[in-house]
Amino acid sequence: MTARQHDTSGGLQQAAKDHLWMHFTEMAAYSDSDIPVIERGEGAYVYDSRGRRLLDGLSGLFVSQVGHGRGEIADAIAAQARELAYFPIWTYAHPTAVRLADRLARMAPGDLNRVFFTTSGSEAVESAWKLARQYFKAVGQPTRHKVVSREVAYHGTTMGALSITGVQDLKTPFEPLVPTTVQVPNTNLYRARAHGDDPEAFGAWAADRIEDAIVQNGPETVAAVYVEPVQNSGGCFPPPPGYLQRVREICDRYGVLMVSDEVICAFGRLGEYFGAERYGYLPDMITFAKGVTSGYVPMGGVIARERLMEPFQESGGMFTHGVTFGGHPVAAAAAMANLDVFEDEKLLDNVRRNTPVFRSALERLYDLPIVGDVRGDGYFYGIELVKDKETRETFTGDEAARLLKGFLSPALFEAGLICRADDRGDPVVQLSPPLICGPEHFDEIESVLRRVLSEAWQRI
Amino acid sequence: MTARQHDTSGGLQQAAKDHLWMHFTEMAAYSDSDIPVIERGEGAYVYDSRGRRLLDGLSGLFVSQVGHGRGEIADAIAAQARELAYFPIWTYAHPTAVRLADRLARMAPGDLNRVFFTTSGSEAVESAWKLARQYFKAVGQPTRHKVVSREVAYHGTTMGALSITGVQDLKTPFEPLVPTTVQVPNTNLYRARAHGDDPEAFGAWAADRIEDAIVQNGPETVAAVYVEPVQNSGGCFPPPPGYLQRVREICDRYGVLMVSDEVICAFGRLGEYFGAERYGYLPDMITFAKGVTSGYVPMGGVIARERLMEPFQESGGMFTHGVTFGGHPVAAAAAMANLDVFEDEKLLDNVRRNTPVFRSALERLYDLPIVGDVRGDGYFYGIELVKDKETRETFTGDEAARLLKGFLSPALFEAGLICRADDRGDPVVQLSPPLICGPEHFDEIESVLRRVLSEAWQRI
Repeated sequence: MTARQHDTSGGLQQAAKDHLWMHFTEMAAYSDSDIPVIERGEGAYVYDSRGRRLLDGLSGLFVSQVGHGRGEIADAIAAQARELAYFPIWTYAHPTAVRLADRLARMAPGDLNRVFFTTSGSEAVESAWKLARQYFKAVGQPTRHKVVSREVAYHGTTMGALSITGVQDLKTPFEPLVPTTVQVPNTNLYRARAHGDDPEAFGAWAADRIEDAIVQNGPETVAAVYVEPVQNSGGCFPPPPGYLQRVREICDRYGVLMVSDEVICAFGRLGEYFGAERYGYLPDMITFAKGVTSGYVPMGGVIARERLMEPFQESGGMFTHGVTFGGHPVAAAAAMANLDVFEDEKLLDNVRRNTPVFRSALERLYDLPIVGDVRGDGYFYGIELVKDKETRETFTGDEAARLLKGFLSPALFEAGLICRADDRGDPVVQLSPPLICGPEHFDEIESVLRRVLSEAWQRI
Repeated sequence: MTARQHDTSGGLQQAAKDHLWMHFTEMAAYSDSDIPVIERGEGAYVYDSRGRRLLDGLSGLFVSQVGHGRGEIADAIAAQARELAYFPIWTYAHPTAVRLADRLARMAPGDLNRVFFTTSGSEAVESAWKLARQYFKAVGQPTRHKVVSREVAYHGTTMGALSITGVQDLKTPFEPLVPTTVQVPNTNLYRARAHGDDPEAFGAWAADRIEDAIVQNGPETVAAVYVEPVQNSGGCFPPPPGYLQRVREICDRYGVLMVSDEVICAFGRLGEYFGAERYGYLPDMITFAKGVTSGYVPMGGVIARERLMEPFQESGGMFTHGVTFGGHPVAAAAAMANLDVFEDEKLLDNVRRNTPVFRSALERLYDLPIVGDVRGDGYFYGIELVKDKETRETFTGDEAARLLKGFLSPALFEAGLICRADDRGDPVVQLSPPLICGPEHFDEIESVLRRVLSEAWQRI
């Protein structure tokens, strides 16, 4: 039934080291040790090549919302592959992409009704920018092409998306990129530059930095503002109260489009299908990927408000953009089956019910001296590690590298927990478990983190 | 077994028009007519919602190498989805991605041994450029960042890939893009600006335009040259004899990397697994997508020569790039099963055996006054349409639009043939049938084209 086994010269480890160029990976780290190999998954757990069970506390990479090993999704994609595995939606349509577009439009808030499918999150972020640029040219505002985004925010790695990304270290080796993106402060309340004791005032301050950027650049040159509902990179920065509403107002004031980048936050991560619903704002576009299929097949896309399509519906009008695998039948079938699981198992209810339980479990870790901040929402949390809890002093670059890559990442894996020790901003441990998880998984997460973070503290 | 049926308000047509933003499509074209809906596929044929059978003369979009409805690939992806549907290859590995990387490295020529997986062709093209840029910074040549590519060549639509693309109309609405790409003449022998009567001299002339561009830009600023083995856009320009070898020499002379963009040409399209083998040259990187899985699941990637990885294997070195769905388990399983079909059914042999038969069938159309040029290789052909065969006079933009979009595209569809009437360069009809096709399919293609092109000529 499955593809025949192929011998790999010298075994799987050697083949991996010789031929698989791993992503965002220091390959030299494995020169004297084995690469961890994940072989199978079931529910919230995965199993490595040594047969060890690990709790997938990151849902792969913010992806596996419904958990691993779902036979119903496997059946759906096989049936679609037999029926029609691939056909482009360039001037044609096929039923599954249409049904999924219809379903997503119904799920999305307001008049977010137009679905442009892509293959990935990066392609979704690129497509929203391209749409904004061509839209403004079509409506007689051709000088609007810039994007405002936030510091340390990650929006993808293709060159357009990377230009929007606010992590400079990820950009430097690849410059020059697409010019005319501007970064403004994010909503890191823990390290607020102003109003650190007043979330609402801090949120207003942070939103106003977006206004400053628009004004300084010339509003007639700015096409869009990109924000995640909860910013991932840097370690889960939730929006302060009123922040996203104020960003919406600022965008309206200057005629700028608001893009809600929900590649991570959509599809239940925050207890709603979309982050925009969770926080009550209506963006002009939502970008999505990852959770739409729970990663069973790659897919991404943009959901746009009605008015953005209008100039492209006139005779001779066309959004001159597309990707080969857009609306892929098998991916669309995976998404439909995935959303069926959401409904059948009431996964949004599960997340909403357990959100305070998850938070409490992680907040118990505040008794550890290394835990500076626990922040996030829904099933999406970051724990910031500090050298001094009182002063909030962080680690030097070298210390952080030794702590995160040298100790925490392998130690957490050895202890049976997949999560992310991340140093794109200040050092954080990120958690984003499958949406099927409940209190017993949170206890397991807390227990492993307690043991490993305590040992980390001893080693400093 | 399959996802439940979802009612679409007002039926599938209305749902498509209301919610599915089709790619590269004038949506207004369907304001008074139905969108063609493809429902299922079997072998070289697809069936539309009216139950009509159509020969898929474009393999979807240069994708469906092994044809539609392959149960063995459906089984393989379902089995993998049950076992492990998704896990990142960021610091981890999983067996199927390793086996596929190993297999591709063995298939690829020379020391093209390092496989960096992506989700799509655009991401593959972006990744090769990013790799070239970071590689040169790592080896002490930080000023090398530019790319030379060819006029009218299509390399993808994300902003980096789009910058490399040589179709200006696709770029204008989205500028400014990534700066410092340069386009040089392609190998359109039919409209050669020099040496039109001597393919070898023309090839040398065209290759030397790449050298000119490198010299004029300053060799120390040029990172890579991108060429397709047979250029797709413009209508299948094969390389003149000696051209690609001369490009290789020029790249070597100036220390520039040669990228063979094989998103279309790899995996049997030209009768070999890679275009580089078909024409006997060794690029520094091969980009691929589409045919690697025959489109059953989206996948792309870059295969790089050994030396490109060396600086990233040193302690602390890292190619700071990655994508969520890179090396996707289900995509990798689809690729393995797809390549099994290639082997079991000796598809490369089929293409090689039939290459002259396909060419002959299309060349029979030379007796039509509208057929100016028939060109291509393997199962990849373009037929250029002209107003005057003797003078090679082409159609005006308006005429081409009326001819291609207004008449040919719908008429060919009605006549039961999927192919591509393309006006990104001079007007062409492109053919790229599944690799399982044989003489009976070529006869069918010729017969439909003969009828429809004759009618087109009457209408001019």
